[in-house]
Amino acid sequence: MDHATLDDAGVFALGRGDALVQTVDFFTPVVDDPYDFGQIAAANSLSDVYAMGGTPLTAMALLCVPIDSIGPDVIREILRGGQDKMREAGASIVGGHSVTDPELKFGYSVTGVAKRRRLLLNSGARRGDRLLLTKPLGTGILSTAIKQEKLEPAHVRRLTRQMATLNRRASEAAVEFGARAATDVTGFGLLGHAAQVADASGVTMRLRPTARWFLPRVLELSAAGVVPGGLGRNREFYGARVNEGGLPQAMLDALYDPQTSGGLLIAVPPRRAAALAKSLTRRRVWVAEVGEVVGRGASSVELVGT
Amino acid sequence: MDHATLDDAGVFALGRGDALVQTVDFFTPVVDDPYDFGQIAAANSLSDVYAMGGTPLTAMALLCVPIDSIGPDVIREILRGGQDKMREAGASIVGGHSVTDPELKFGYSVTGVAKRRRLLLNSGARRGDRLLLTKPLGTGILSTAIKQEKLEPAHVRRLTRQMATLNRRASEAAVEFGARAATDVTGFGLLGHAAQVADASGVTMRLRPTARWFLPRVLELSAAGVVPGGLGRNREFYGARVNEGGLPQAMLDALYDPQTSGGLLIAVPPRRAAALAKSLTRRRVWVAEVGEVVGRGASSVELVGT
Repeated sequence: MDHATLDDAGVFALGRGDALVQTVDFFTPVVDDPYDFGQIAAANSLSDVYAMGGTPLTAMALLCVPIDSIGPDVIREILRGGQDKMREAGASIVGGHSVTDPELKFGYSVTGVAKRRRLLLNSGARRGDRLLLTKPLGTGILSTAIKQEKLEPAHVRRLTRQMATLNRRASEAAVEFGARAATDVTGFGLLGHAAQVADASGVTMRLRPTARWFLPRVLELSAAGVVPGGLGRNREFYGARVNEGGLPQAMLDALYDPQTSGGLLIAVPPRRAAALAKSLTRRRVWVAEVGEVVGRGASSVELVGT
Repeated sequence: MDHATLDDAGVFALGRGDALVQTVDFFTPVVDDPYDFGQIAAANSLSDVYAMGGTPLTAMALLCVPIDSIGPDVIREILRGGQDKMREAGASIVGGHSVTDPELKFGYSVTGVAKRRRLLLNSGARRGDRLLLTKPLGTGILSTAIKQEKLEPAHVRRLTRQMATLNRRASEAAVEFGARAATDVTGFGLLGHAAQVADASGVTMRLRPTARWFLPRVLELSAAGVVPGGLGRNREFYGARVNEGGLPQAMLDALYDPQTSGGLLIAVPPRRAAALAKSLTRRRVWVAEVGEVVGRGASSVELVGT
């Protein structure tokens, strides 16, 4: 991993222009249903490989199980969800490791390959590039609402479906249309990850937030203070690098919301942006044009009200 | 992973006769010193790749930290121990993942490469092969003695040094001298792992145990009942596949002792066995000739008193 640019996955050069792209992730349940949790954990673990423009090859399961409180049926469903998602991604599960643990945790170590010259690095964004986002925001806020029993079943289902959706098609389109940089939006929220790409590339990201960027109910929950603890920590850590403009507070907060299995933030040369957006839509990937890359200013990210 | 033969690591075919060899392992501390623990965790994680005859390329750290009780200094020492050992192995650390957890755990996900036709598989042992072991036994029993404050500092140091020792030179020698099969002796004890190789290869392992196979103090601690819980579970699980002969009870028990970062059990054609043993000694690897492979009998493993 190039620690200086905080790329999403580790890259190891193989012969003939190929690179291994590797990542590992595991976490506590974000939804109640064990099969759904397995799917989401798999999609989330694969996401870093997709964010680099890689193709997943293998996965190893990581499982921490409180054997006194979690039965074998639950474990079987978690693993089945993970396996189904890995199959969808074309990745082979080649092993794994489980330990007994006071707290249930699940995830994968994933290995993919990519052509080295087509890797989507954090440092690749250039002035003038257009920025695309491929999943709406707010999974942290909605997960908090679930825990507080404030989210209707239909919204729970939509959230679950989105978190279980692979970034595969988004990644393939980005590589095909010559995107220059990408990252997946996860724990640091859109603004945290945008700031990382901006700093690694020596540019500023100018974003023009609108309500359409957010999943249903996210902005009103944000206004009501139904937000995860990580949101405040992200704002504290990244706030100094963000010119917050005159954005409404609820929207601003929601831009710092930590995401689970979030979409890709893609920087693409302007002449290819429309074609990439169209191709994403054709592949049935949600997409929003969220702004553009400008020359490095005082902030890593500049928010502009619309 | 070929689940049927329980090989030590997952194998994924790349082009041109190469294979990825992958494994993941993490566990709670086995020694008090954090730097030593980091080294042992790294050596243990790498061991599955060496057991397959592979060369480690990359590693990703897995860390579960109780942030309220474990300070950053301790974590730094654990990581430093792991890094130093990975450097010794020639493996690049390409990333990692940490989570807060009620219980400290550390380990690595490791990726190596091997020539497919030189892989040391569990299924490769043939009648007539000689069996070599490359580390003495008893790490589980001695770790239990440490917890009960029954082990002298000099023995603690020797145990620590052994568990931190890579199986690299043993693996390289095994591949160079055309060994047919190998496994690393870990949680299932020598008899459990020998039974796995025997069953995968359709043969019986005839072992002739002597006191020299064991670390100092192991047999007397075994006789005194200072043994880990895993020992009894191994005996329960594998006992039916083992013809225990007339071995003394303390020695028999110790053969089921679960090992941390144990040595390799290598099956090598008889005409090359002496040369391999000599080469191991020249590389300063501890080695014992522990028996031979015979045609499949009623048991997976046959113990013969000497």
